[in-house]
Amino acid sequence: MPVGTVGSVKGVSQDVLEQLGVQILLGNTYHLYLRPGLDVVRRMGGLHRFMGWDRAILTDSGGFQVFSLNDLRKVTEEGVTFRSHLDGSTHFLSPERAMEIQIGLGADIIMAFDECTEHPADRERVRESMEMTLRWAARSKKYFEEHKEEVPWGDSRQPSAVSFQKHQVASDQWLVAGNRTVDEKTNHQSLITRHSAIATQALFGIVQGSMDRELRRESALRTIEIDFPGYAIGGLSVGEPRELTREIVESTLEHLPADKPRYLMGVGTPEEIALYARMGIDMMDCVLPTRAARHGLLFTSEGRISIKQARYAEDQSALDPECECSVCRRYSRAYLRHLYAANEILAQVLNSIHNLHFYMETMRRVREEMGTSH
Amino acid sequence: MPVGTVGSVKGVSQDVLEQLGVQILLGNTYHLYLRPGLDVVRRMGGLHRFMGWDRAILTDSGGFQVFSLNDLRKVTEEGVTFRSHLDGSTHFLSPERAMEIQIGLGADIIMAFDECTEHPADRERVRESMEMTLRWAARSKKYFEEHKEEVPWGDSRQPSAVSFQKHQVASDQWLVAGNRTVDEKTNHQSLITRHSAIATQALFGIVQGSMDRELRRESALRTIEIDFPGYAIGGLSVGEPRELTREIVESTLEHLPADKPRYLMGVGTPEEIALYARMGIDMMDCVLPTRAARHGLLFTSEGRISIKQARYAEDQSALDPECECSVCRRYSRAYLRHLYAANEILAQVLNSIHNLHFYMETMRRVREEMGTSH
Repeated sequence: MPVGTVGSVKGVSQDVLEQLGVQILLGNTYHLYLRPGLDVVRRMGGLHRFMGWDRAILTDSGGFQVFSLNDLRKVTEEGVTFRSHLDGSTHFLSPERAMEIQIGLGADIIMAFDECTEHPADRERVRESMEMTLRWAARSKKYFEEHKEEVPWGDSRQPSAVSFQKHQVASDQWLVAGNRTVDEKTNHQSLITRHSAIATQALFGIVQGSMDRELRRESALRTIEIDFPGYAIGGLSVGEPRELTREIVESTLEHLPADKPRYLMGVGTPEEIALYARMGIDMMDCVLPTRAARHGLLFTSEGRISIKQARYAEDQSALDPECECSVCRRYSRAYLRHLYAANEILAQVLNSIHNLHFYMETMRRVREEMGTSH
Repeated sequence: MPVGTVGSVKGVSQDVLEQLGVQILLGNTYHLYLRPGLDVVRRMGGLHRFMGWDRAILTDSGGFQVFSLNDLRKVTEEGVTFRSHLDGSTHFLSPERAMEIQIGLGADIIMAFDECTEHPADRERVRESMEMTLRWAARSKKYFEEHKEEVPWGDSRQPSAVSFQKHQVASDQWLVAGNRTVDEKTNHQSLITRHSAIATQALFGIVQGSMDRELRRESALRTIEIDFPGYAIGGLSVGEPRELTREIVESTLEHLPADKPRYLMGVGTPEEIALYARMGIDMMDCVLPTRAARHGLLFTSEGRISIKQARYAEDQSALDPECECSVCRRYSRAYLRHLYAANEILAQVLNSIHNLHFYMETMRRVREEMGTSH
């Protein structure tokens, strides 16, 4: 999942994301809550309609950003008080508030409000934090179940955006295909409306437990007991060695049901996403492809390239000779290096498109290799 | 002509420019000379190949930027000494040097080196400046005629990129169409090569004379005497009232041959480009559509919109309900306003695409109205 922090994957238009084959985007609840704000997005019909994106969206709970962007946060059993990184104003997030916001944003998949345990932390602290995340997960689910009908989709959306799109096209075709009677049309419309009315978001639970395998196991089992349609592994990629990340993911995966989506949060490099997908992870998100692109770091079949280097100033070859993306088919390393050196906006645009393509292609290959087509 | 100052129309990829129907771009000689530098572009095979753009390109002479970006310039009969706005280094531009650079950049149309007379200026100063521009025009032509074969196109380009493209496609089709004999192929290839070998750039002259109709007339007639395949009107849009610009353009046009391209430099608003096209101007360039876009100023069929305004925060309508561009078809004013307020790169990208579409559409309508199809 490419990351569209404030409702846009930086520098890449939704048309291009579709061309790249992106099926689902991640939006950051914390950022969207602060700007443009929950009320705006809700009144605009939810995030899909607001950003003109019919395919799927997942929003995170806001917890990770509150922890990573706010030094002055105050955590209690009730929730977290924090200051906006934009204007210093004080805000409060709790499981209930995080659900209210995510229901209002209207993503297809939303996340339980969790505490991302700092690293390193001693065992007692990790257990306390994990226990609170479990209580917050139960509160998240309770609030969600009581308010899930409040999604701002109206009659205009199904939980799976893609399937809805097909449905809508078929429906429109049906309506224009012949001279339908008013009754036929009314029947047809009420069928769609009834179908839509029962459509709600999917709330995923998050496993915590830091680097402790035993606590991870306990967190997984007790989160599954609460019962969610999908499970995420949170609290990793927080500064621990990569090998430790791998070990924790592997041992945690053993306890997660294989028939439900398993989502590893905030990971990772192209090598890592391939590795974890082979292990059984179904979903990942990371700002790396787009953030690295904006800093001129490009992923290629020949390894990483820092396009700002003078060695590329007259390099006429494609960025990645094996890549079929629109950037590699048209532009040379010399041109991309020039755009970066001249601080042209197009550098960020083209670099982001290439890196996203590289990530999408990495996953396509893993799927092919594993014999899955979706 | 959209302006691609340093080899890119800011924020808009070449694919999108093609989709927008852009037939010709302007590149700034001054900027390209400083970065990436003449040698790099020349060694990369010229600007077309460097930036992956097969359609036409025009480069300006560098004169206007030297005059507008350099307070410390020193002008003599020989040429202009100036300091780089990038690093303060000292450089020298003359008619000969400007030709050498523009031949090396390899645009399809290049411009004689002129002095853009400051405004206001007294009659004596305007005459002196105009006379020097005429001497520089003759020197430009002389150098060009002696060095025009030095374009870095090799056998890979015709002067009109568009016609070459068609020719190349036809040629490729011819080659694959049947089992041509080796002799046939060789004949065919040598025909192309011979055709390419005589292909050179088109050097346009520039009419100066400030706001003085009589001096404009004299400048036009004496520039025509030097004989160029196209003529530009320079030295306007330098702070004079719009009405005066119009009068000078109108009176100068009377003296320019209608069977050769007439190019009005640095103009203008959508209303102005329509006005001047109806008067007989064939070519114009302006940074306005892209620069205004980056500042959130958008052109629509209902007038100008400053998308940063809070009044658009929840405006679900398309930016321009009558516009068929990819931005207006997909996004709301509310979303564009949010992107701008959140300082997202995509704001600049989408705003630029819309404004360029508006300009292209403005010209398309004028052509239609005037019954010309090209």
